Amino acid sequence: MQKIHVPVSDAYDVLVERGILRKTGQIIKDLVSAETCVIITDDNVDALYSGIVEQSLQENGFRTAKFVFPHGETSKNAATLLNIYSFLCQDEITRSDCLIALGGGVVGDITGFAAATFLRGLPYIQIPTSLLAQVDSSVGGKTAIDLPEGKNLVGAFKQPKAVLCDPDTLSTLPETFLIDGMGEVIKYGMIADSALFEALCTYDLHTVREHFDEIIPVCIGIKRDVVAEDELDTGRRMILNFGHTLGHAIEAYYHYETYTHGCAVAAGMCLMTKQFNSAQDYQALKACAERYHLPTEVPAPLQELVSLCGNDKKRTGAKLRYITCEPIGSANILCDTLPEFRKKFAMP
Amino acid sequence: MQKIHVPVSDAYDVLVERGILRKTGQIIKDLVSAETCVIITDDNVDALYSGIVEQSLQENGFRTAKFVFPHGETSKNAATLLNIYSFLCQDEITRSDCLIALGGGVVGDITGFAAATFLRGLPYIQIPTSLLAQVDSSVGGKTAIDLPEGKNLVGAFKQPKAVLCDPDTLSTLPETFLIDGMGEVIKYGMIADSALFEALCTYDLHTVREHFDEIIPVCIGIKRDVVAEDELDTGRRMILNFGHTLGHAIEAYYHYETYTHGCAVAAGMCLMTKQFNSAQDYQALKACAERYHLPTEVPAPLQELVSLCGNDKKRTGAKLRYITCEPIGSANILCDTLPEFRKKFAMP
Repeated sequence: MQKIHVPVSDAYDVLVERGILRKTGQIIKDLVSAETCVIITDDNVDALYSGIVEQSLQENGFRTAKFVFPHGETSKNAATLLNIYSFLCQDEITRSDCLIALGGGVVGDITGFAAATFLRGLPYIQIPTSLLAQVDSSVGGKTAIDLPEGKNLVGAFKQPKAVLCDPDTLSTLPETFLIDGMGEVIKYGMIADSALFEALCTYDLHTVREHFDEIIPVCIGIKRDVVAEDELDTGRRMILNFGHTLGHAIEAYYHYETYTHGCAVAAGMCLMTKQFNSAQDYQALKACAERYHLPTEVPAPLQELVSLCGNDKKRTGAKLRYITCEPIGSANILCDTLPEFRKKFAMP
Repeated sequence: MQKIHVPVSDAYDVLVERGILRKTGQIIKDLVSAETCVIITDDNVDALYSGIVEQSLQENGFRTAKFVFPHGETSKNAATLLNIYSFLCQDEITRSDCLIALGGGVVGDITGFAAATFLRGLPYIQIPTSLLAQVDSSVGGKTAIDLPEGKNLVGAFKQPKAVLCDPDTLSTLPETFLIDGMGEVIKYGMIADSALFEALCTYDLHTVREHFDEIIPVCIGIKRDVVAEDELDTGRRMILNFGHTLGHAIEAYYHYETYTHGCAVAAGMCLMTKQFNSAQDYQALKACAERYHLPTEVPAPLQELVSLCGNDKKRTGAKLRYITCEPIGSANILCDTLPEFRKKFAMP
């Protein structure tokens, strides 16, 4: 078992091990004093992994309850959240019980936000089952739901009591979700680890699976370092958003239907690197993204995407902050007004 | 001006002064770097005080925006919250802007929760205009909305950047709201200050107005002491809930329609004191409550109220915690299972 300690205000460990799902009850028994553990998951993940987790929890003396909602980003909204709250009320869940987010980024984000706000907060555990959730969204304490006006516009910082990361769950992951996660994995190489980036340039969508045992802890370690330095996302943590300013704009432009988060981020990283790095860097990133079937550009007019960046919640006052990775393996935070940012893309 | 410093994680001051509303812009200019201040208020308060606050903000260089919702506890729900989020999106509010809660407890609670969660948090200022909000809900960082299943079931801890408390606003307060607030004022005497309690036993609903300049800071000071000791409500802070366990049950039993919060708390305090204190204490509290036209009992069967206490979110696991004030001016935290608690009231 690999243990990555996250030294934030409410410190916790990310535990990575194949088959760790079967030990859920045993591990969390020492971390929470809950009577009831409420598993919150989506219909896809429920069919695959709820049984294993429930059994482990019950064998270790927990009562279990389960709330299942339809899979997909469209569920990450206020309606699902209100249904979760209702379920918790009806099950008479108290502050000393525990929520368990079993699933991908959507499940983790909405369960974390429910845990941050129901009864003003109760403990929760992350069990990420997608690559994206394992390397990114389950670590760092960011929780959120989407609004009709945009993604992640409502949320809270809420650290889990632990993250249990089982690379075996990736074996059932559909290829489209593997591609999605690889967008974020490449991002870690770009912002902080040129050796990781170079390694990724030698694997492909099929061979990379053999290297998950090394790659996942490396990515979590990078995220941990950044998060520990800036828990509440007021400064350096912003480097994790490389590719996201344009990526969020791409997702919004296509109403979150055409591109997954990782694909939008990949295209966003490529568009930024084309603009701010050498042609050589751009070609290297483009070739790497293509190895994982990630898009390197999108049909949407760049001008409209750049304008949509004005809605990004990372703006401070009228300024827009964005990230460049020049050279690859390092990250810079830049800050411009929206008109200045447009000029960088040679737009009027 | 009286300044009460609240030394919590994100420390701030409560400023009490007649006419302080007119200085809003001047005061917050030094506290937040917002471009826009969004006043969130209800229709009643809007008609009385929005103009004064807006003018002061604009004179000090802030852009202002305003969201007004219908007054009353029934507005403190997810629907109003979602409307606030939409408004903030449409007005392109960023994390460095500022929300201003101008109104009573409902406005303060829902605005604080919006400030805690929109874009994962932005600064906010409390300008409480009711007695209840000035002495209680605006201090301590508790924010919340109600669910159909109960009051304050969803919320967050979020400290304001400042609380501006203008006793002059109480002159326009309808008598029913004054009574409401006096329930909490008496509570402070009961839990922590027998001299305050004795003074309240000599005033009445009309003469007490002359003493607000002393009473309000005393109440805020008591709350500050308790909150500073237990910011996240995991222990001692619970003493602020004297009368609330039964009070919440009374409010729920009558669907929040018959009794205001302060009236329900007053009846709750009397029912608890009758059960746990001497006859003399009970008579003193009863006489005091009657001076302020507060109820000392309710028609609802005590048995049903006690059963409803099982839904209170302060339970830890299967235990129910509740407060007694024996002797008057001090508070004890007791913990029982619901059946044990029922027995204390001589119930089967």
